[in-house]
Amino acid sequence: MSYNTFGHLFRVTTWGESHGPALGATVDGCPPGVPLDADMIQHWLDRRKPGQSRHTTQRREPDAVEILSGVYEGQTTGTPIQLIIRNMDQRSKDYGNIADTFRPGHADISYFQKYGLRDPRGGGRSSARETAARVAAGGIAREVLRALVPSLRITGYMVAMGPHQIDRARFDLAEIERNPFWVPDAQAAEDWARALDQIRKDGNSVGAMIEVIAAGVPAGLGAPIYAKLDTELAAAMMSINAVKGVEIGAGMEAAHLTGVENADEIEMGPDGPIYRSNKAGGILGGISTGQDVVVRFAVKPTSSIHTPRASILRDGSPTEVVTKGRHDPCVGIRAVPVAEAMMACTLLDHLLLHRAQTGRTGPVGQIGQIG
Amino acid sequence: MSYNTFGHLFRVTTWGESHGPALGATVDGCPPGVPLDADMIQHWLDRRKPGQSRHTTQRREPDAVEILSGVYEGQTTGTPIQLIIRNMDQRSKDYGNIADTFRPGHADISYFQKYGLRDPRGGGRSSARETAARVAAGGIAREVLRALVPSLRITGYMVAMGPHQIDRARFDLAEIERNPFWVPDAQAAEDWARALDQIRKDGNSVGAMIEVIAAGVPAGLGAPIYAKLDTELAAAMMSINAVKGVEIGAGMEAAHLTGVENADEIEMGPDGPIYRSNKAGGILGGISTGQDVVVRFAVKPTSSIHTPRASILRDGSPTEVVTKGRHDPCVGIRAVPVAEAMMACTLLDHLLLHRAQTGRTGPVGQIGQIG
Amino acid sequence: MSYNTFGHLFRVTTWGESHGPALGATVDGCPPGVPLDADMIQHWLDRRKPGQSRHTTQRREPDAVEILSGVYEGQTTGTPIQLIIRNMDQRSKDYGNIADTFRPGHADISYFQKYGLRDPRGGGRSSARETAARVAAGGIAREVLRALVPSLRITGYMVAMGPHQIDRARFDLAEIERNPFWVPDAQAAEDWARALDQIRKDGNSVGAMIEVIAAGVPAGLGAPIYAKLDTELAAAMMSINAVKGVEIGAGMEAAHLTGVENADEIEMGPDGPIYRSNKAGGILGGISTGQDVVVRFAVKPTSSIHTPRASILRDGSPTEVVTKGRHDPCVGIRAVPVAEAMMACTLLDHLLLHRAQTGRTGPVGQIGQIG
Amino acid sequence: MSYNTFGHLFRVTTWGESHGPALGATVDGCPPGVPLDADMIQHWLDRRKPGQSRHTTQRREPDAVEILSGVYEGQTTGTPIQLIIRNMDQRSKDYGNIADTFRPGHADISYFQKYGLRDPRGGGRSSARETAARVAAGGIAREVLRALVPSLRITGYMVAMGPHQIDRARFDLAEIERNPFWVPDAQAAEDWARALDQIRKDGNSVGAMIEVIAAGVPAGLGAPIYAKLDTELAAAMMSINAVKGVEIGAGMEAAHLTGVENADEIEMGPDGPIYRSNKAGGILGGISTGQDVVVRFAVKPTSSIHTPRASILRDGSPTEVVTKGRHDPCVGIRAVPVAEAMMACTLLDHLLLHRAQTGRTGPVGQIGQIG
Repeated sequence: MSYNTFGHLFRVTTWGESHGPALGATVDGCPPGVPLDADMIQHWLDRRKPGQSRHTTQRREPDAVEILSGVYEGQTTGTPIQLIIRNMDQRSKDYGNIADTFRPGHADISYFQKYGLRDPRGGGRSSARETAARVAAGGIAREVLRALVPSLRITGYMVAMGPHQIDRARFDLAEIERNPFWVPDAQAAEDWARALDQIRKDGNSVGAMIEVIAAGVPAGLGAPIYAKLDTELAAAMMSINAVKGVEIGAGMEAAHLTGVENADEIEMGPDGPIYRSNKAGGILGGISTGQDVVVRFAVKPTSSIHTPRASILRDGSPTEVVTKGRHDPCVGIRAVPVAEAMMACTLLDHLLLHRAQTGRTGPVGQIGQIG
Repeated sequence: MSYNTFGHLFRVTTWGESHGPALGATVDGCPPGVPLDADMIQHWLDRRKPGQSRHTTQRREPDAVEILSGVYEGQTTGTPIQLIIRNMDQRSKDYGNIADTFRPGHADISYFQKYGLRDPRGGGRSSARETAARVAAGGIAREVLRALVPSLRITGYMVAMGPHQIDRARFDLAEIERNPFWVPDAQAAEDWARALDQIRKDGNSVGAMIEVIAAGVPAGLGAPIYAKLDTELAAAMMSINAVKGVEIGAGMEAAHLTGVENADEIEMGPDGPIYRSNKAGGILGGISTGQDVVVRFAVKPTSSIHTPRASILRDGSPTEVVTKGRHDPCVGIRAVPVAEAMMACTLLDHLLLHRAQTGRTGPVGQIGQIG
Repeated sequence: MSYNTFGHLFRVTTWGESHGPALGATVDGCPPGVPLDADMIQHWLDRRKPGQSRHTTQRREPDAVEILSGVYEGQTTGTPIQLIIRNMDQRSKDYGNIADTFRPGHADISYFQKYGLRDPRGGGRSSARETAARVAAGGIAREVLRALVPSLRITGYMVAMGPHQIDRARFDLAEIERNPFWVPDAQAAEDWARALDQIRKDGNSVGAMIEVIAAGVPAGLGAPIYAKLDTELAAAMMSINAVKGVEIGAGMEAAHLTGVENADEIEMGPDGPIYRSNKAGGILGGISTGQDVVVRFAVKPTSSIHTPRASILRDGSPTEVVTKGRHDPCVGIRAVPVAEAMMACTLLDHLLLHRAQTGRTGPVGQIGQIG
Repeated sequence: MSYNTFGHLFRVTTWGESHGPALGATVDGCPPGVPLDADMIQHWLDRRKPGQSRHTTQRREPDAVEILSGVYEGQTTGTPIQLIIRNMDQRSKDYGNIADTFRPGHADISYFQKYGLRDPRGGGRSSARETAARVAAGGIAREVLRALVPSLRITGYMVAMGPHQIDRARFDLAEIERNPFWVPDAQAAEDWARALDQIRKDGNSVGAMIEVIAAGVPAGLGAPIYAKLDTELAAAMMSINAVKGVEIGAGMEAAHLTGVENADEIEMGPDGPIYRSNKAGGILGGISTGQDVVVRFAVKPTSSIHTPRASILRDGSPTEVVTKGRHDPCVGIRAVPVAEAMMACTLLDHLLLHRAQTGRTGPVGQIGQIG
């Protein structure tokens, strides 16, 4: 509903450019009385921080977050929380030569066309650096969720990098934190490291697929017709830089299924309905069912590559573009914490919407409790 | 930004249930002075109307639209346009037996959980019948687009039905209007007809994949960061009933590409930049580039099938569900005109947003026009 | 946030023109499970209905409301409620001669300037007839409030008509329903009847001042900084046709007070804080305190009068305007039920916002309960 | 549509507390290519700055604004502009003794009731210090307006302080900048200085009335029904701290007029319609007519006074409140630049909305130009 804001009630407005003095997020609508300090947010920012392995950009940013408002004596006050992250390692001279050049596959050309001018330093507002602000805001959302729905767990991980896919038979959540790819498959982590070294050496880059699961989501979240939970998650993920496709549950594969295959059969479990499969990805009719909410999305390869590509200058004359500077050979890696943050913000926002309309943080209709 | 409203400036609010007296759309923010009458809207509704071939539900609905406000002497006045479509063929007795049953894969259970009660007749608000209101609103959007950007063309079609895919080598847009599948491949149309007859005979249903292309979209539409054109199209398509995945351009496949493959190289054409490929789907950094905008999405198979599936009743006891009544064996077919409508509404909304901010209906930054 | 919608969570979108086939309201975001039928809404519409005394327009409209969606078996379902009121007594010929004329003090000229065309029949969208839709929506808000805050009472009444003011010494709420002016002063009712007969006989009209009080509003409603409860009430009342000023508590008179006079001193009562005065009108810092919420507003006299006034035609040539047709000599009278409806909608909307953020329908901070 | 955001397209989100490290505004939706630097904004902040005369609070704040984003090489880029103002002179010890006390007439009690906790230092978020962020945002709005409608002029001034009113016979706009009261009447400035000295000496405070006029507003701005220009201006002004009433044109006085008196008669002037009076305050049916837009509002006296007032503590026990610290004896004085800023933001927002819908920055319907 705005250019730089997302959320209905838990509203996050981000601001800032890649090479400006700072970037940040204004978080409005946060419930009051939630314990919060900068360290709780920093924890999540540290996961996204560049330069933590050889597989991400070597830009050195501490990404230290400060809270400028909305918190008093360690608790949220219910008023807007301003988060600020200063840019320390801009090196804008690296980018000087691209002011009049349009990198193929990059927002250079479209920003110029839309606005008639652009901040070319590091991609300006279109830089993935903006996602630091999302991760910071997501850190707040997680603290509120922890208070309201303690059992909720959000986990993101890579499931593909270029032609390489994880082997679901080896799927192990414990592996995610043990490798620089956030990949739940130890073997894949090793293979991908070698593959990505080669990609980088070739002056190329590669795409990725990320999956995010939210377990423990109460049934009843979502708001038909145009603010369905899946609609909003699709928008949340598609808003991340370089994302080109989003899936819920069976996703694009649903096109190839029959109704018999697609129907997640239901049984009564000890605590409510349980399902024999999860083609729905935890969402039916735009509303959560209590199953795991499953979202998957594709991140295209970075367009900033060392291999020359044909393009034009602003005056229309032809050129070849080779992007110098420090770039992520697989920008999808750092999208994992961003996706978790977007999931957290979206779920919290819908939890508040549901509470507004019904007074509950869980289902209104109870199954299996009729005399 | 609302439960039943979409759009920022060209705002569509839909209302109505499958088996209530009527359904409709309130269209607010329409530019004034645009020629409009009910026939112009009816044209698009007729394409979506059920019962036009043996491949769609046999429910007989004339889907006749009336304009109740906002138009005077054949022109829009700039005030809200209320569109109403009366339900004529409800036969709600067909659905009586499912009031306490939850169809697997259907919103029955999640609506009950969210609200504590639901209108079970024909799926109530969760019925795909709601999409008639979108198509009607889309008819208005098309008339406004015709006035503002006459060269813009929106075309939707099926590209897969279950395991069957079109052969892009046979792609022929002219075929779309000649078969009941809106498929741009005459051979596929024949094959799919046979396949779908079998599906229906088996008491089963099948998923589908739809592609929508908008040609002639001016460069510069879209609004970073959280109202990117691709973000909004993803939300628009995901909000359609039964959609489980959305792709822009290369889509999920982008995960498997390298940066070299993914970079759509640019040349200068006679009227502006031209591109050697369209992996981007016409959108970079959330802003249109002037290339074709390409969206693809998957529709799951209808959960209302004649094959028994395990489920539970409201009291938690087990049951087998067999859905009687008239249903679409491939609900994706009728999603084609709906997707076109959502594309039209989204593009118009962003055209108005762009005009608000820049005063233009096309690009501000001109390429190739410097001294 | 929209042209024809108000409310954040309890959202009302009205549509329709004075002389079109119908008008109505789409009410979105209503809590589910609230008992509702058309009669409950009709009750409030009947209070606003024209032609109930000689002091209002003689247009004969039954103003019968139908519910087209969102209610099932006598309860709200949580999905959008469409209300429709058919126009029966349009007599548009009465207005034919004003199509190219601009009535002084009327929206004729500004609508034409804004849109380049207008529906001149009865004022089109600018007609006070639109307020019927608000009253209908307010009827729903009242039923929800009755369920959530049973002790809340909303009461509107006139406090001035032209130069005539009520005598606060004679103030008696019981009088309000006994006279056609909704005036809490029996003597005023008699005097005003005579005065208004004269006004009508003179082919003139007269302004009015209305006061609305909400008693039993829980402390804690309101949302600083830009959705303060007083801000929203000011907007709600100013959006009513012909309103030119809005006051909260002491209102404009606050400019003339000292801080000593203005400070409503506080004592502890048996159930919480009580105040020795109510200069604040029940709102401090944009948030309700639990005192009566007091709003006052001025309605200008109808510009449709039988006395000639100098004006111009669309082509710029001079003319004299005398409005024929059936008009309210004091349109403020019928603004009373409209103002009550706006109060109900605004309070409910903020009750839902407060519940979203805090989980409560009353105050979070408890006074006088510390060990 | 949000707690801390105002505007539809030109959206301002403010953040920060009186005694936190900083406060600021995020301005989203600004047109690109508008010349802007910090000095242009500082100019307006300097007018509002405390401590410029003995008549305002002696808190010493340089109120120096920094632009952290959205501007590149002296031009707006169309992306969000973050403005930050650091708090330098907090002296929070002055306020320590009021943490558990509720000042009569102040938001202390309502914030506590709403949120269960509050930042008591200087009123926290409820402090009028927040208005610095509005003035900064208004500085941007003015630069955009200067580019789009160069002839538009916004002028605010005081018209009453307590019992003292200006003499309209002495009205002289040139006086406004010559006295610390922004009062267009040299004699009043002298009288009021003496009166306010006495008020301050008495440990008291006093209310004020402010008028803001916008000349050169194009006809056609405004958006019926619920975003009327007068509705939005009423909300804009009522959202300013301590405002209790808002009037457009004749305002509350309209209640006492007849239709004959109220009708602003129209003539054809050389450049369009001219009016013999301006009871409407430049707005008819919620849309600007091209006349001066006239808004007036009342500011209550500061509740922070040195005279003891009866109140309660958080535990319910009685107390007497005497507010120490540095306060404005007439907070209305500093509301003048704030009101101008809100006028600028509101007009620009509606200019953009009008341009979105119609493609114009002025009227669509032309009067006097028919063959």
